[in-house]
Order: sequence, then C-alpha cells, then structure tokens
Amino acid sequence: MKTLKIPEATVMRLSVYSRFLEQAEHHGIVTVSSGDIAEGVGVSPAQVRKDLAYFGEFGTRGVGYNVSDLYQQIRRILGLNREWPVVLVGAGKLGSALARYQGFLGRGFRIIGVFDNDPGQFGRKLNGSEVLPISQLEEVVQKNGVEIGIITVPAAAAQEVADRLVNAGIKAILNFSPRVLNVPGQVVIRNVDFSVNLEVLTFNLGLTNKHF
Amino acid sequence: MKTLKIPEATVMRLSVYSRFLEQAEHHGIVTVSSGDIAEGVGVSPAQVRKDLAYFGEFGTRGVGYNVSDLYQQIRRILGLNREWPVVLVGAGKLGSALARYQGFLGRGFRIIGVFDNDPGQFGRKLNGSEVLPISQLEEVVQKNGVEIGIITVPAAAAQEVADRLVNAGIKAILNFSPRVLNVPGQVVIRNVDFSVNLEVLTFNLGLTNKHF
Repeated sequence: MKTLKIPEATVMRLSVYSRFLEQAEHHGIVTVSSGDIAEGVGVSPAQVRKDLAYFGEFGTRGVGYNVSDLYQQIRRILGLNREWPVVLVGAGKLGSALARYQGFLGRGFRIIGVFDNDPGQFGRKLNGSEVLPISQLEEVVQKNGVEIGIITVPAAAAQEVADRLVNAGIKAILNFSPRVLNVPGQVVIRNVDFSVNLEVLTFNLGLTNKHF
Repeated sequence: MKTLKIPEATVMRLSVYSRFLEQAEHHGIVTVSSGDIAEGVGVSPAQVRKDLAYFGEFGTRGVGYNVSDLYQQIRRILGLNREWPVVLVGAGKLGSALARYQGFLGRGFRIIGVFDNDPGQFGRKLNGSEVLPISQLEEVVQKNGVEIGIITVPAAAAQEVADRLVNAGIKAILNFSPRVLNVPGQVVIRNVDFSVNLEVLTFNLGLTNKHF
C-alpha cells in the first residue's frame, strides 16, 4: 500500500471546503461544481480538484459533487467523524477565550478539562467545565482517553507543560506559546503564532511596492 | 521587471526563520548554515535554501549566513522594518486576549485602538489603550494612517465591521470570526480559524491508521 505525502496546505483547504459544503447543505443545495467550491472559498477550480484527487474520486464528470456526500467524506478524511476530547493548559485570557470558543464544538472538539497552576484560578467556570489544578492533568487525560492538548501558558512554562502532556499520553499538541517545543517524533505538534498571520499581511501589503 | 508568485507557506516559514535568527543573534551566534536553520525550525535544509532563493542571494557558499544580516533582510522582506499601527474591533474575550498579546509588540505591531459597540465596554483599559465606541473607528484610522485591522466580533457582525474597516481606509484584515468575508480585491484578508489548526492535528493522528 502506498502512502502519499499530503501537503499541509491541502489539509487546511479541505477544512475550509468542508465549511463551505456545510453552509451549502444548510441552504439546501444538492450539487456543486469544483468551480462553485473554488469561488466560495477563493481558490482556483484546478486547486480544488487537485486537493480532492489526493483522496480518490469524488464527483461525477459533467454533474459535479453531491454536497452532503462530499461533506461527509471530507469530515471523515479530516478525522471529524467522531468527537475529540481536548485538554487545555493555561487558564489566562487566551486560554479562557479558547475554552469558550464556539467554533470548536461544531467540529467535534470538546474541551473537557482546563488546567492551571494558579490556585486563584481553581474552580472558575469556563463553558461548563471548571479550572482544575495541573496535578489532575494525568488522571483526566487517562480516564477520558484524551489525545489532543492545547498549550496557552507563558513561554517560560511551555516546555515543561509539553513534557507533562506527552508523559500523560497526549499524541497531538496545539501550541499557542511563542516558543519552539521539543516533543518525541511520534507526537504531532502545531504552533499558532498570531504574529505570523500579521506578517503574511504586511508581506502582501509590501508586494505592491517591491519587485523581486 | 518580473514579479514572482511567492507561496504563502514560504512567507510563513520566513517569519519562523526570523524568530530563529533573532534567538541565535541573542545568543551571540554570528554565522549559521541552512542546516542549522532547518534543524532549529523543523524543515529540510533544501526548503530553507529554496525559500530564501525567492528573494535573492544571501549566504556565502561554504561559510553560511551572517545571522544579523539575514535577520534584518528577512524583516525587511516581511515589511517589519517599521512599526505598524493596528486597530482591533470586538473587545470580547478573544479581542482582549489579542490586545494584551505580547508577541505583537516585538514584531512591530502596535494595537492603537480597540473598538466595540457595547457601551459597557467603553473606557475599559486594555494594555495601555482603552476600549472606544465603534463610532470613533474612522477618525482613529485616518488620523494614524492605520492600514491593518483585526476583527474579533461574532460572525453575525463581521461583514458589517469589514465593510466599515475598508471604508475607513484599512488595506489588510486579520479575521478571527468564523465567517467568510467579502472585501474589495485590493484589500488583503487572512482568516484565522482555530478549528482548522485542530483539524490538521486530527488528520495527522488519523494518518497512521489510514492508507490512501
């Protein structure tokens, strides 16, 4: 069996396509073309076809894609045909905002535990769950079979938290701290740095004045 | 003059390289190889060389790159050799967390105005500036020559806020609302959806069990 290397940009676009398809289904649309998807999300029709081709044959030539079929297929590809329990470490402003972030639940991500090392935070309610002492992390992760952890602690504490998550059995980490973390090779890690997003904007703002 | 299309992934990696170089400079390192950079940020040396090649010749063959030269060059490419005033609309949890986000300032992004339409928020202090009524948006943008706006309002209000930012003269928008926004072609827009990041993780978690 062959394993293709799927570009990360393709995975991110699949996620965006699935949102478009969800909205289309919501509006009662039954069939869409790659051109419809492309226009809806701002890429080329060829890009849509290329991205989908990594995973098989989906549409019918001359007819297009069945909206709810394709939506379900993409959700399955992304691993969203199940619910994912998630733990979050760091109950500061950003952690609190993420714990309340409504976009997670609709995609199957349920934050079942928020942890901090500040006793002043313990017991504070965040969207149904309450902030727990970090000492309870391992127990919650193991009892609920949690595989995904989110880090929203300051940079100085991030590596220690990452080690602790990995030791507890976490397999994938979304890191919001501005620090490069070392984790074992089998652990998937993804860094979110808000400045990077702004820098893509300033790069593009500058493009009109620069020539390479 | 020729304009190359630079992949967005390249721009994002440049941003990551620049953080690595900043740290290297901080530690007194004078010269690095593409292999050093690659190892520091988790990509291949060939990728580092390819990304930099879009913008010219930087290193010396057999010697490597001068750390502080390359750092300054990348900052210039990214448009970070100046300060960027930024306005933020939506003073909820996420907006408040972003207004206090320390990672922005070190990269030259200064949030000079936070706006909301809830009078209960007006005057609340956020990292030096205070929450202002949305009615003052246009005045602040124009007086300070602001080109970048961040949207952290609920989905239902996001398009209206985007229109207002564009009319005020904003040229680039970072959108944190879970809604696809329509803006004129010359306005640069970037959507941040936290779920997309989690979905890249679940996709990769699933890869070990799937074969395409």
